[in-house]
Amino acid sequence: MKRLSILGSTGSIGKNALDVVARLSDTFTVQYLSAGQNLELLYEQARRFHPRAVAILSEKDVSAFLPKFRELGVEVWVGLEGLLAVSSARDVDIVLNALVGAAGLKPTLQALQPGKRIALANKESLVIGGELVMEKAREVGAEVVPVDSEHSAILQCLVGENPATIRQLVLTASGGPFRELDVEHFAQVTVEQALDHPNWDMGPKITVDSATLMNKGLEVIEARWLFDIEPARIAVVIHPQSVVHSFVEFEDGSVKAQLGMPDMRVPIQYALTFPERCPADFPRLDFSTLRALTFEPPDLEKFACLRLSFQALESGGSAPAILNAANEEAVRLFLERKIGFEKIPQLVEEALARIEHNSFASAEELLEYDREAREFVHNRLSL
Amino acid sequence: MKRLSILGSTGSIGKNALDVVARLSDTFTVQYLSAGQNLELLYEQARRFHPRAVAILSEKDVSAFLPKFRELGVEVWVGLEGLLAVSSARDVDIVLNALVGAAGLKPTLQALQPGKRIALANKESLVIGGELVMEKAREVGAEVVPVDSEHSAILQCLVGENPATIRQLVLTASGGPFRELDVEHFAQVTVEQALDHPNWDMGPKITVDSATLMNKGLEVIEARWLFDIEPARIAVVIHPQSVVHSFVEFEDGSVKAQLGMPDMRVPIQYALTFPERCPADFPRLDFSTLRALTFEPPDLEKFACLRLSFQALESGGSAPAILNAANEEAVRLFLERKIGFEKIPQLVEEALARIEHNSFASAEELLEYDREAREFVHNRLSL
Repeated sequence: MKRLSILGSTGSIGKNALDVVARLSDTFTVQYLSAGQNLELLYEQARRFHPRAVAILSEKDVSAFLPKFRELGVEVWVGLEGLLAVSSARDVDIVLNALVGAAGLKPTLQALQPGKRIALANKESLVIGGELVMEKAREVGAEVVPVDSEHSAILQCLVGENPATIRQLVLTASGGPFRELDVEHFAQVTVEQALDHPNWDMGPKITVDSATLMNKGLEVIEARWLFDIEPARIAVVIHPQSVVHSFVEFEDGSVKAQLGMPDMRVPIQYALTFPERCPADFPRLDFSTLRALTFEPPDLEKFACLRLSFQALESGGSAPAILNAANEEAVRLFLERKIGFEKIPQLVEEALARIEHNSFASAEELLEYDREAREFVHNRLSL
Repeated sequence: MKRLSILGSTGSIGKNALDVVARLSDTFTVQYLSAGQNLELLYEQARRFHPRAVAILSEKDVSAFLPKFRELGVEVWVGLEGLLAVSSARDVDIVLNALVGAAGLKPTLQALQPGKRIALANKESLVIGGELVMEKAREVGAEVVPVDSEHSAILQCLVGENPATIRQLVLTASGGPFRELDVEHFAQVTVEQALDHPNWDMGPKITVDSATLMNKGLEVIEARWLFDIEPARIAVVIHPQSVVHSFVEFEDGSVKAQLGMPDMRVPIQYALTFPERCPADFPRLDFSTLRALTFEPPDLEKFACLRLSFQALESGGSAPAILNAANEEAVRLFLERKIGFEKIPQLVEEALARIEHNSFASAEELLEYDREAREFVHNRLSL
């Protein structure tokens, strides 16, 4: 029996992960759950999966739920301290980090313990602290396994292969809802349009990132660290059907790809069972109705966020942390209808240009850059 | 240094294999070559690769070449005996069987020796004698590695995976030159049209088989034995671009594929270096110009050879040997312009229906069925 801790259990990835666990209840048991503020759902999950404890980040409204959790025999740990306690708990085999944003970095670092697996859905852990995280993982003998469909695809293509024979990784991107929209109309894009992703059902932040292609940019940075590969060996190709989840080209000219229906439960389950596979009745790719899979190069002028991501990765050090934080704030402002869609890459580009960055930084310093970039975006807005 | 024996070195696969070996001359050395009757080319190959001996199947014109080979210090072994001697030679690590037709079965059985690898391009070894060959390979501890691009693709998708987790193998087929031709026009198909394959440059027999889809049918039978998988778990999908070389679907819903430019040197090299890969500058799949990969289900009425192959596999025993021999003869008659293109599946179907088959047969018996099916086709023709 593998004991699981799920950070961010009430979000999109967290809910899908619990669906996977419910189907594989002979193999996995839930030890801890953590959520931000959706206490109603967290309580339902606790009732169903009987964790030892739940961590609740926001202390608001907690008191009303305390007796209910107590009734279930489930401990409640609150605040950032509670989250970090769940992350570092020793009686866990796999920590699934499905937190959203920079807040995921510290829990990832806490979770890296000998023999433990971190199933990483929190992109920012690697975008901001990729070098730190992977170094610590190697040092302590922890395992970092991706949950993103693209990185899971690459991992699946690499099992049984010698990583030294990789020529390039090619991440696929759906191109989002504005793939065919003229860049001149980006200023008129509404929040509703940006949240209407053609293939994947995800949280709002990542859905907007898919529309700007920043999501793919962050994944490029993740891939660089996850697979220890030079940025020049990572490419992106637009693939509107989201059936091919990514490619690996090897030095003999052979290319491998992983494909499937866009259902996050497949890569989530793989992150838990890797390197094994378990039967599942998720929607299957139907070869009798499969028709066209199309590809095109990404437009780096139109989708400046992708270009900026490669640029930040090239600069290294704190640049990706600045890129990510400026984007996170810009997206939040867009979702709050305070700025237009076209402003997102502009604010990120300005933040990268204006904030002096460092070629190496500790986790604390990286989070300092993160704060600085957020402040920068807010100051730009109030001007 | 791995010592290679190449059976059928003057054919399309043989020539490509020698190109691969020339590029990897630090790793592979040619110990034996064998050819049918293209002595001019065999002599050139011997001059370049310095084998210990060459085997020449046809004794016609041999005497004129004997002094030339002697001058090179290369022994000449003639006839079927010579071919079998090269196949079973002990001072060889890898036997590449690139013979065409049923004649490839005995050399494969001869080559199966402890610790030896058979790189198998001769489809008929497995089509006719799949059960025998794989059983003997397991028994003696020999390794059978496919050279066909489709089976190589499957092998590549399976490295690092547990074969018990395969849900299905999906072989891709280009659909050949007559994919869009109405079946009513099959009778007017010329030899030149049948030999004009859209993607692959191969020998004439296999090119006609690609046009009738018999080639895919034979590959389905090969896959059944090579990967020890039930026929019901093997499917075929038409993919005119020949970029995806095959798919494997796993029980968790994940699908893997291997892709590349249609260049036989990639799977040939992989069969030699497996499970390792070696750098090569063969033409690469260009992701910046990659556009549409299309798929459609095969039309089993129009391409009856594919249907008949599944049927023969289902019948088992000697049925695939009959299917294969009847087809081999029918194709030869078509290439000699003695029968129309539409007659190929008809003759195969009749042979399968009329010749009583056996549920289990020895190699000798299988080759007896082979002879009987050939005779049947010739008798049908003379009626």
